[in-house]
Amino acid sequence: MFLLTSVLVAVVCLLMVWIFQNADGGTQRRKGEPRARAEARPWVDEDLKDSTDVHQLEEDADGWQVSEEEVDHIPFSHTRYPEKEMLKRSQEFYELLNKRRSVRFISNEQVPMEVIDNVIKAAGTAPSGAHTEPWTFVVVKDPDVKHKIREIVEEEEEINYLKRMGPQWVSDLKKLRTKWIKEYLDTAPVLILIFKRVHGFAANGKKKIHYYNEISVSIACGILLAALQMTKTVPKELASIYLPTL
Amino acid sequence: MFLLTSVLVAVVCLLMVWIFQNADGGTQRRKGEPRARAEARPWVDEDLKDSTDVHQLEEDADGWQVSEEEVDHIPFSHTRYPEKEMLKRSQEFYELLNKRRSVRFISNEQVPMEVIDNVIKAAGTAPSGAHTEPWTFVVVKDPDVKHKIREIVEEEEEINYLKRMGPQWVSDLKKLRTKWIKEYLDTAPVLILIFKRVHGFAANGKKKIHYYNEISVSIACGILLAALQMTKTVPKELASIYLPTL
Repeated sequence: MFLLTSVLVAVVCLLMVWIFQNADGGTQRRKGEPRARAEARPWVDEDLKDSTDVHQLEEDADGWQVSEEEVDHIPFSHTRYPEKEMLKRSQEFYELLNKRRSVRFISNEQVPMEVIDNVIKAAGTAPSGAHTEPWTFVVVKDPDVKHKIREIVEEEEEINYLKRMGPQWVSDLKKLRTKWIKEYLDTAPVLILIFKRVHGFAANGKKKIHYYNEISVSIACGILLAALQMTKTVPKELASIYLPTL
Repeated sequence: MFLLTSVLVAVVCLLMVWIFQNADGGTQRRKGEPRARAEARPWVDEDLKDSTDVHQLEEDADGWQVSEEEVDHIPFSHTRYPEKEMLKRSQEFYELLNKRRSVRFISNEQVPMEVIDNVIKAAGTAPSGAHTEPWTFVVVKDPDVKHKIREIVEEEEEINYLKRMGPQWVSDLKKLRTKWIKEYLDTAPVLILIFKRVHGFAANGKKKIHYYNEISVSIACGILLAALQMTKTVPKELASIYLPTL
């Protein structure tokens, strides 16, 4: 479990690249085309275009379907802590989360799979656009598969450093001393790959739009990071009763 | 604190609309233009274009600057729980988070400001692209300001329902029984507005790109949701010792 957090962050960023490119049918920017063009468009077009199948959007505009599915609302009951306790808990949670670091050196210590299951289940409680839950979490333990993933990630990341992202990005990262080599993708006992699902399927086989899928998946990643940090890091006042790993 | 969570979710989604439109100089989609066009572009262009000042990107490509700033890395020490304890903690965190609901009815009970500060500080521990921390959290308690925000949000949301998002979206939301009226923006004692900052400024006044700003802010929102849920909701086994609010 040790430094899984950082794998995660890397994987969140990098696997999305991979998916995106495959979803695109491997389209490439044409040589000499400006990197980004200024275009005035309202936010919602951008947001939908970013991660939704736009052909489908247009089809849906012609032949949209009424969702017949009825959803039972779950009764909500809630017990609230007294103010003093809320204060204490919010303070403790902040202090614990504030110890998280985006490290690039990962321990090879094994982690119980039940812990991995629990943190992913926690991530899956995230809210999402129209409750579409547009995420897939894939857990990889096999060394060969991990290594293949590392190769894909490094290949894409090398392109980022050498040409895709531009000199300003490379310069901005310099002080963080990152690079496109990711040894930790081999070292970590477990990789959690996070995929955003840009659409789903209805019972009749028709594509279903996943609204705000990138925002929704990223919120789930935030909860995943919190779950990992909650699970693995011992608060200061308890640290002395546990054996340190370093 | 009660159901702040839901305000948050609404505000995450809706305030971003507002910001985006203002950042755009209030540009509007032209009548008759298709809602979204299929264009083949590599992911990174999309991602940068989505939320970065594209004029600036082009300027930077010509006259980019080396970041001279040196960053000291903070030594990382870490105490890890024994496996049994990790299991227990991951299970408890999942069960607690799984009780969160995106409710639309909010209590007007007051919340100590220190609690709000702590949950925002926890959110601010999120990782971000090139450590740019591209977020601003604004806490609103003034009833008049809250009401103005409600008006802006409802105005935009009404457009979403009536024309912007299209009939499929309206149909998909039907089963969730949401609407564009947001009484809770008046009722909640505190609103936390979350702004993504699409760029910052260097010491010399030049614009600094915030990479992956939307993903980064959304991850911070996930941590904020976790912090709120951790702070306010009493786990089952402790519930009997606290007075219920419902």
